[in-house]
Amino acid sequence: MSGHVVALCGGVGGAKLAHGLSMALATADAGSLSIIVNTADDFKHLGLSISPDLDSVMYALAELSDPVRGWGRRDETWRFMEALKGLGGESWFQLGDTDLAVHVERSWRLAGGATCSEVTAHLCRTLGITAQVLPMSNDPVHTRVLTEEGWLDFQDYFVRRQCQPRVRDFEFAGAAQAKPQPDALAALQRPDLRAVIICPSNPFVSVEPILAVPGIRSALRETRAPVIAVTPIIGGKAIKGPAAKMMSELGLEVSPAAIARRYADFIDVFVVDESDPVPEPVPNVKFLSAATLMTRVEDRLWLARAVLHGADALATE
Amino acid sequence: MSGHVVALCGGVGGAKLAHGLSMALATADAGSLSIIVNTADDFKHLGLSISPDLDSVMYALAELSDPVRGWGRRDETWRFMEALKGLGGESWFQLGDTDLAVHVERSWRLAGGATCSEVTAHLCRTLGITAQVLPMSNDPVHTRVLTEEGWLDFQDYFVRRQCQPRVRDFEFAGAAQAKPQPDALAALQRPDLRAVIICPSNPFVSVEPILAVPGIRSALRETRAPVIAVTPIIGGKAIKGPAAKMMSELGLEVSPAAIARRYADFIDVFVVDESDPVPEPVPNVKFLSAATLMTRVEDRLWLARAVLHGADALATE
Repeated sequence: MSGHVVALCGGVGGAKLAHGLSMALATADAGSLSIIVNTADDFKHLGLSISPDLDSVMYALAELSDPVRGWGRRDETWRFMEALKGLGGESWFQLGDTDLAVHVERSWRLAGGATCSEVTAHLCRTLGITAQVLPMSNDPVHTRVLTEEGWLDFQDYFVRRQCQPRVRDFEFAGAAQAKPQPDALAALQRPDLRAVIICPSNPFVSVEPILAVPGIRSALRETRAPVIAVTPIIGGKAIKGPAAKMMSELGLEVSPAAIARRYADFIDVFVVDESDPVPEPVPNVKFLSAATLMTRVEDRLWLARAVLHGADALATE
Repeated sequence: MSGHVVALCGGVGGAKLAHGLSMALATADAGSLSIIVNTADDFKHLGLSISPDLDSVMYALAELSDPVRGWGRRDETWRFMEALKGLGGESWFQLGDTDLAVHVERSWRLAGGATCSEVTAHLCRTLGITAQVLPMSNDPVHTRVLTEEGWLDFQDYFVRRQCQPRVRDFEFAGAAQAKPQPDALAALQRPDLRAVIICPSNPFVSVEPILAVPGIRSALRETRAPVIAVTPIIGGKAIKGPAAKMMSELGLEVSPAAIARRYADFIDVFVVDESDPVPEPVPNVKFLSAATLMTRVEDRLWLARAVLHGADALATE
């Protein structure tokens, strides 16, 4: 089956499935892929414009990700960072020497008036990425985290404080005023839309900021194409990152079903891991089981194929 | 003899004598040192604020200079630059991984409202530099080069075009409106001023931009302290850089005497290399011979001592 596939994606975890989808759709007749990426983690650091989730997706698609560290680029070196520490510079956010090239190139292009999506398209082109990688919006949106210690900016919470403070709520400052990136909305409205995949990203700080951009959630509700989400929770734990910790601190059950309920207004299928029991029914949501843990690169491709197969099966029902 | 010494300095060549002076004046009773540095080469590149001469002076004083390449930092690596090329980024200006830390730290501090001299003082402190390193001005001044091909910005001429186009003239855009950095002017007016040293820097694009900042040249003319310049020309050639090529293209004799004549209104002594003949008399200028070629680090100290000795001898005449 051919047609256009759209993925919604946060950082490292979701980027693995985005990479799997790009491999599954790499042949000419397999259809095309747009990846709508969370930009609510973007921030300015040392005067540089840093887009952690866009970078994670680009590095995964270009097969430049570090396989051990789980973030940043493979074969990275840290000479800049060591020299910066020698100058008494801020060292809480690690910037690798090759990663820094992306930040510098993005920053001066943005400062010169290019949009985030123009810069992303340029970077993807130079990295040989054929999938369309799109920021959710070219307007600034900033995730803020209400913790027991008060409001924190996302990177302060996530990197500086290592997700330690207990969370109570989230806000996506600027989201209500933000316009969706036009190609992102257009991709969701294509007549040949085959499926929309919600990658196994953190629901609270990766997927929901994208959904908070006006027009995105309603486009997902309205599309006739299957919308299929993949669990970021396996065996009651997050595969990576603070999703499980957040669910528990918010008083939610740490389970795939709890996430399926948050997405129930726009998803058709929710994929749980094959090692977990199929959840109790959630209205309007069909559960599918698959191997969702993407340890090896092949796992990404297999999960992508399973998800596309599930979507296609639903479409022909 | 004690007292305060002021040096005027451009990049790499002059920075060697600045380092020699800082070594000669390192003991507590030896007096103190201010180095007024050319900032007319400063430019923006990839959104970063780059001050090549300030960096050369800082690296020389902190003993971080690369001894072979002649510019930048020792033990440098180029991972950022390689990655930037991979992104199709501009690669005509080389930025080493550790050098980049200085540019990033300077850029965001300037963007945050700090002056160039505040940022320089901060960087010098973190690098353990005790001499006072001062930009000639906190206001923007830009050297432009009139060549046979028209006007070029300095870095375009110097780095991108490798000084190939023949020069006809120079201008220091913004110099007439620039204020001298206050501590620089104050240093030249100190009652305990022991000597002013014009380092063996390029007269046209390193020393004369400093002299073009209102108040500097007149302070040099007016001071009662000896003003002593060191030749950047030995045996009819520049030790480094395009000084000799420029002199010849401007129709000047390529000789120490031709430079001494350009400085004759404010210098007392001009130091020629011991391998060159003492020039024909230049009104108001006394010639001294010394070993001016600074190949080894010790040569810097010996030349600094010879220059200070020459200044002190004149002061007690």
